[in-house]
Amino acid sequence: MEIKKGLEDVYVKETEITYIDGELGRLYYRGYSIYDLAEFSNFEEVSYLILYGKLPNREELNWFQEKLREERYLPDFIIKFLREVRKDAQPMDILRTAVSLLGIEDSKNDERTDIKGIKLISKFPTIVANYARLRKGLDIIEPDPKLSHSENFLYMLYGDRPNEIKSKAMDVTLILHIDHEMNASTFASLVVASTFSDLYSSIVAGISALKGPLHGGANYEALKMFKEIGSPEKVNDYILNRLSNKQRIMGFGHRVYKTYDPRARILKQYAKLLAEKEGGEIYTLYQIAEKVEEIGIKYLGPKGIYPNVDFFSSIVFYSLGFEPDFFPAVFASARVVGWVAHIMEYIKDNKIIRPKAYYKGEIGKKYIPIDSR
Amino acid sequence: MEIKKGLEDVYVKETEITYIDGELGRLYYRGYSIYDLAEFSNFEEVSYLILYGKLPNREELNWFQEKLREERYLPDFIIKFLREVRKDAQPMDILRTAVSLLGIEDSKNDERTDIKGIKLISKFPTIVANYARLRKGLDIIEPDPKLSHSENFLYMLYGDRPNEIKSKAMDVTLILHIDHEMNASTFASLVVASTFSDLYSSIVAGISALKGPLHGGANYEALKMFKEIGSPEKVNDYILNRLSNKQRIMGFGHRVYKTYDPRARILKQYAKLLAEKEGGEIYTLYQIAEKVEEIGIKYLGPKGIYPNVDFFSSIVFYSLGFEPDFFPAVFASARVVGWVAHIMEYIKDNKIIRPKAYYKGEIGKKYIPIDSR
Repeated sequence: MEIKKGLEDVYVKETEITYIDGELGRLYYRGYSIYDLAEFSNFEEVSYLILYGKLPNREELNWFQEKLREERYLPDFIIKFLREVRKDAQPMDILRTAVSLLGIEDSKNDERTDIKGIKLISKFPTIVANYARLRKGLDIIEPDPKLSHSENFLYMLYGDRPNEIKSKAMDVTLILHIDHEMNASTFASLVVASTFSDLYSSIVAGISALKGPLHGGANYEALKMFKEIGSPEKVNDYILNRLSNKQRIMGFGHRVYKTYDPRARILKQYAKLLAEKEGGEIYTLYQIAEKVEEIGIKYLGPKGIYPNVDFFSSIVFYSLGFEPDFFPAVFASARVVGWVAHIMEYIKDNKIIRPKAYYKGEIGKKYIPIDSR
Repeated sequence: MEIKKGLEDVYVKETEITYIDGELGRLYYRGYSIYDLAEFSNFEEVSYLILYGKLPNREELNWFQEKLREERYLPDFIIKFLREVRKDAQPMDILRTAVSLLGIEDSKNDERTDIKGIKLISKFPTIVANYARLRKGLDIIEPDPKLSHSENFLYMLYGDRPNEIKSKAMDVTLILHIDHEMNASTFASLVVASTFSDLYSSIVAGISALKGPLHGGANYEALKMFKEIGSPEKVNDYILNRLSNKQRIMGFGHRVYKTYDPRARILKQYAKLLAEKEGGEIYTLYQIAEKVEEIGIKYLGPKGIYPNVDFFSSIVFYSLGFEPDFFPAVFASARVVGWVAHIMEYIKDNKIIRPKAYYKGEIGKKYIPIDSR
C-alpha cells in the first residue's frame, strides 16, 4: 500500500492557469512569462487574465476595473467588527473572520462565482489596510476610486498617495503572489469547493491554510530571522549554526523549484531599490538578506535549495510599510485571485475531493465496561 | 500523466483512528465496532477513545467530562455576536464565524492541541443551540453542568430536560458522526493543519467543507426531498422520475460503502422509534423515507448504492427538534472530534499537503500591449 504523504507528485487536476518549470526556474500565468507580466502589465490586467484566461481588451479591462473599484468599500458590520475587535490579533485571524462574516451576509446571493470573487479581491486590501491603521490607533481611510488597485491599497495604509516606486513595487509583488499552480491554500479552498460549499467558505479555508508558517507565514518568519541576525557580519555564523543544527533557513527551499525562484529574482530588484531609497533599518535588513542569500546558496544550492518568493517579499512588504505579521495577509490579498480561478476551473467538472487513510490498527476489539478496564 | 481527480483511492496518511470495511458494511473506531459503541458507550467516552486511542478508565473519564463541562460556556463576545447577527443566516455560516472569532481570542494560547480541541467540542453545541433559539425569538439557555453532553445539547435547545429516548437517540447519533476515516472536511482541516496553521483555522476549514451539499449538507437535502415527496404513495413515481433523469437520490450512495452503511442501519432504528412516538408529520416523513429506501435499494442496490448516514439522520435530527438547515451544524458538533483527532495524528509526523496540477495549456505566449489586442 503506497501512502502519498503530503501528496507530493500527485496530480489532483488538470489546469490551464499556471505552469511552473521547477527545473529551469520559470513561471507562466496562462502561458505568459511572469517576467513580462511583472514588467509590462498590472494587477488588474493579470487578475483578469488569471480569472478569464485571456488578456483583456480595453473594454473588458474597463468593466473589470470598474467592478473592482465599486467593490472596495466594506459594509458597516465589517467596519464595526474591525473597530471593536482586539487590536493585538493576528491579521490573518482578522481576515479569515471578516470573510466569514461577509459570507453570512451574502449567503442568499446567487451571483456568478467570478462576480463574488471580484468582491473579495477588491475588499481584501480594505480589510487589511483598515485593521493595520486601527491597530496603530489611527482612523481608517476610505478607499479612493480614482486610484489603481495597488495605489489604493497603499493609500489606505498611509493616508496619502504612495510614490511611483512604491506603487510599482506593490503592484509587481501582488502580481507575483497571484497564483502558483497547486499549493496548500489553493488546495484547501478546492477541497471545500468540491463539496459544493459556497465561495466564502472556500476562501476562508484558503486563508486558514495560508496562515501557516510553512506556507504564507514564511515571509513573516524570514523577516524575523533577518531581524534576529541583526547585522551583515553576523550572517555567516548564524547560518552555519542553523545548518549544523539541521534548522531551516527561512525563505529558502520549495517543493517545486530546484533552482532560483523567478519570483525571488524579480523581488530582489525591488527590495534593493526600496532599501537603498529608504536607508536605515531597512537597508541593513536588505544587506543581511543578501548575505544570507549568498551563504545559503553556497551550502544549500547544490541540494537544489534556493531563495523562494518569501525571502525578498519580506523586505519589500516591510519597506512598503506593512508590519511583519501583516505580510501573510498581503500575500492573501493577491492569492485570493488564484483561489477563485482554481475554484472556477475545478467546479466546472467537479468531483468531491475525498482521499483515504490507510488503517494500521487492530479491529474487532471487545468492549469492556468501564469498571473492568 | 495520471490525474487523481477527487483523490479517489489515494492514501494520504496512515491512521489508527477509524476503519471502514466498505464491502462488509462495518465501521470501527479504534478497533471497536460501531454497533458496540452505539449500544454500550456514550459520547464522552467515545470522544476520549477517538482522541486518546483507548477507552478511559473511571479517573480518565472523570477528568475528561469535567473538562468538557467547564468549557460549555461561551465568552461574552460570542454571545454578543449570536445576538446581533442576522437571524436568517445559515447555521453553518454562524458556526464557521463563531469558531473564527474564538480563534482570534485564543491566538496567544499555547495549550496542547487536545485541550484546545476539548474547548471546541464542548462549545459547538452551545453555539448551535443558542443560535437555534435566538432565531426563533427565544432567549438562550445557559448550559447545565449537571447534564451529559447530549442531554445538555437538547436541554439548551428545548429549555427543559429531554426524555430518555431523545437523549439516547441524540447520543447515539453524535457517536455515529464523530469520525469516518478520511472525508472532505477532515481532509480540509488536515491540509490547513499541515502548514502549521492553528487549530481554530483548521477547524474552520472543516466546517467550511462540511457545509457543502455533497458532504454534511446531504442530511438537509434528504429531508427536503422527503418533504417534497409529501406522502408515501408518491414515492414510487418520484424516485423513478429522478432515476430516469439521472438525478441523485439524496442520502444514497457513498464512495467507500458498497453495501448498507452501518450508521444508517442504527439510525433507522432510532428514526423509527422517535417517529412512532412523535406521530404526525414526522411519522409521515419516516414512512416516506422507508419507502424511498425500499425503492432506492431495488434500483440502486445492485450498483452498490445504498442509504448512507445522512438518510435516516435527517429524520432523527428533525424528530429531536432541529430545523433542517441546522442538521449540518449538529453533524459538525460530532465530527469536530474526528477533525481534532486526525490533526493530532497527522502533525506528529507532519508533511505539508501540497499536490500538483497538470498544466495542459500553452506556454511562451507573447505579451501584447492592450491597444493591439
